[in-house]
Amino acid sequence: MSSGKILVAQGGGPTAVINQSLVGVVLEARRHPGIKRVYGARHGVRGIVNEDFVDLTQETSQNLEQVAGTPAAALGSTRDKPDLAYCHEMFKVLRAHEIECFFNIGGNDSSDTIRIVAEEAAKAGYPLRCVHIPKTIDNDLVLNDHTPGFPSAARFVAQAFAGANLDNAALPGVYVAAVMGRHAGFLTAASALGRKYPDDGPHLIYLPERTFVLEQFLADVKAVYERLGRCMVAVSEGIHDAKGAPILSLLAKDLERDAHGNVQLSGSGALADLLCEEIKSKLKIKRVRGDTFGYLQRSFLGCVSDVDQREAREVAEKAVQFAMWGQDNGSVAIKRTGNYAVNYELLPLQAVAGKTRTMEDEFISASGTDVTEAFRLYLRPLLGSGMPDAFRLRPNAVPKILKKA
Amino acid sequence: MSSGKILVAQGGGPTAVINQSLVGVVLEARRHPGIKRVYGARHGVRGIVNEDFVDLTQETSQNLEQVAGTPAAALGSTRDKPDLAYCHEMFKVLRAHEIECFFNIGGNDSSDTIRIVAEEAAKAGYPLRCVHIPKTIDNDLVLNDHTPGFPSAARFVAQAFAGANLDNAALPGVYVAAVMGRHAGFLTAASALGRKYPDDGPHLIYLPERTFVLEQFLADVKAVYERLGRCMVAVSEGIHDAKGAPILSLLAKDLERDAHGNVQLSGSGALADLLCEEIKSKLKIKRVRGDTFGYLQRSFLGCVSDVDQREAREVAEKAVQFAMWGQDNGSVAIKRTGNYAVNYELLPLQAVAGKTRTMEDEFISASGTDVTEAFRLYLRPLLGSGMPDAFRLRPNAVPKILKKA
Repeated sequence: MSSGKILVAQGGGPTAVINQSLVGVVLEARRHPGIKRVYGARHGVRGIVNEDFVDLTQETSQNLEQVAGTPAAALGSTRDKPDLAYCHEMFKVLRAHEIECFFNIGGNDSSDTIRIVAEEAAKAGYPLRCVHIPKTIDNDLVLNDHTPGFPSAARFVAQAFAGANLDNAALPGVYVAAVMGRHAGFLTAASALGRKYPDDGPHLIYLPERTFVLEQFLADVKAVYERLGRCMVAVSEGIHDAKGAPILSLLAKDLERDAHGNVQLSGSGALADLLCEEIKSKLKIKRVRGDTFGYLQRSFLGCVSDVDQREAREVAEKAVQFAMWGQDNGSVAIKRTGNYAVNYELLPLQAVAGKTRTMEDEFISASGTDVTEAFRLYLRPLLGSGMPDAFRLRPNAVPKILKKA
Repeated sequence: MSSGKILVAQGGGPTAVINQSLVGVVLEARRHPGIKRVYGARHGVRGIVNEDFVDLTQETSQNLEQVAGTPAAALGSTRDKPDLAYCHEMFKVLRAHEIECFFNIGGNDSSDTIRIVAEEAAKAGYPLRCVHIPKTIDNDLVLNDHTPGFPSAARFVAQAFAGANLDNAALPGVYVAAVMGRHAGFLTAASALGRKYPDDGPHLIYLPERTFVLEQFLADVKAVYERLGRCMVAVSEGIHDAKGAPILSLLAKDLERDAHGNVQLSGSGALADLLCEEIKSKLKIKRVRGDTFGYLQRSFLGCVSDVDQREAREVAEKAVQFAMWGQDNGSVAIKRTGNYAVNYELLPLQAVAGKTRTMEDEFISASGTDVTEAFRLYLRPLLGSGMPDAFRLRPNAVPKILKKA
């Protein structure tokens, strides 16, 4: 049999470059004579269950290129996590449409989804090639140097902190910004790339890889504030106490959980506000301001890394090649081969699916509140070209006449 | 007497282009032989009282151009509002340094500051030329077509909403974003410029120019959600009830006030979170997310309107020309002379100082929850060149085989 039909879906949180991967699948498919139709599932696996497909074969190359440059999932996304019954429904539809290859673009949860689908297909004797295409701003897929989507989000965080640092230097005070990242602190750590001068913020970075102790946090802030007259703090939304309880849960009353059992940490400014209140009340500092970068860090139209764009495209091109020319299911992984160059490998789904990478110890400073030089060297090439830069006036002080202190 | 010394200061909230105005003063001063020294006051009027000046005469043109392209106030800013005693201290310092011209770059409060300083100087018989250079992301200076800083912040808001709209379309739900603007809704209204397709958000825009009624808000959100399956809302931080009480004050316990007596509305995510809670509990919608654009909208490094950049430079060049070639104190104002072209006039300080412009009725739709075509025509040229654009896949639906609903 050879229907020549393939299917692509997007799962999890949108990114600045997930549509590059979608378009990479479609355009690469056009040069494989064995592929006759490319379908897109609307809103991820839910679109399969609902038999809600778009025929991407009919799209123009021109519009595909425009969509590739647009952030967020053009097919729509989902947070659904298929169980066996859900998979059974999916098979009925996949069989009916004679789909031969299924590409799922997403992070940990999406890779686990495609692993389950592949296993169910094998059990049912249905010949379905399943390839996971990596994507997550959290950068928390194991065995990958990094994941598409992370570099652009990291760039947003670095640019945001660079600007907020200038603002805070102009009107000094304490500034706390909450950054996405449940278990992995990579995105929060990216704030360090916004620094240029030695006294630039963020001065303190709190990661989910380290236990958060409120008393120590307050002592850290006090020390920086006394030294510089201001203090900029980056905190991951996933910071937790010694028992693993999210710091946010100290405040929030009704914690929302998704289908994967995860507490909803994003979508509110509560964490930054809570920490600001602690600083105001305990340290008696008047000007304390909190920001939560929220959805802007993954969806802002007009902040993207060109390196991220081309890698998100390539990872999908390779996925189609692995599917058409290889024999195995798998997850495409990015491997660093130079400074800076990458190559792509197909890993077994089981090696990646459902596993979470966190920041390596070598990337976190001994204090636990900063990153190392190794992290800056790791991240800098990913941010891409044209990073904006900040400049200062030189300190040519005018001699005082009235001899004021 | 002719010391040839002039002084420039920056006041109020930083913007993406306030340093263009600073540099405009310094570079324009270099071609006036009567000016021998350009001092900058560190942290606005407070730097005058503290005799804390930087000699900008010694800066290189090259570094000045780099600083001009950097957001936030390079000299530092202040929220101080001088009273008579404060002005007396300022005069002592200005006299000691033989300052002949004082340029204050800022918004309503800064214009009022320079008005008071000018009046005190006149009373004291001190020959001080005082010129206000406009700057505010709020766009709320009277008699100005618009104010430098607003176009870049508006561009940030439009790009942020364009991206958040794509994210919300991919993972549908209700999204509420709070935008800066105490009395004037211009910046919140700029969110409408992020729309491209007819069903793009923001679907509802709440401005401080209209009374906010919670029950009507909930009914509005419900209607959009039922129609589109999602709803994007832009709210100004300054929305208030019929008595003028900020909606935020329904939630916040300890309201912080600045030296001008203003309640602190920025620097927390409370307003968006409050509205999200109302939607969740009253409308029983599960996926409700709030963002607060916070300091990013005025300080983000890498989002600027080129039109704003050049006007912020020009308004300062003209300020120096008015000061050197004219006979009066005043406030430089931007007047629109074409579509799109502007000219600059010097208005009496009293005509501008301390007055607040709000959105004209012709800019607000009859529903009160959207802007008019006139507003879009007004704002579009200010956003500058190179605005990023969002594209969609075309809806080539695959015929269903299993005939699902």
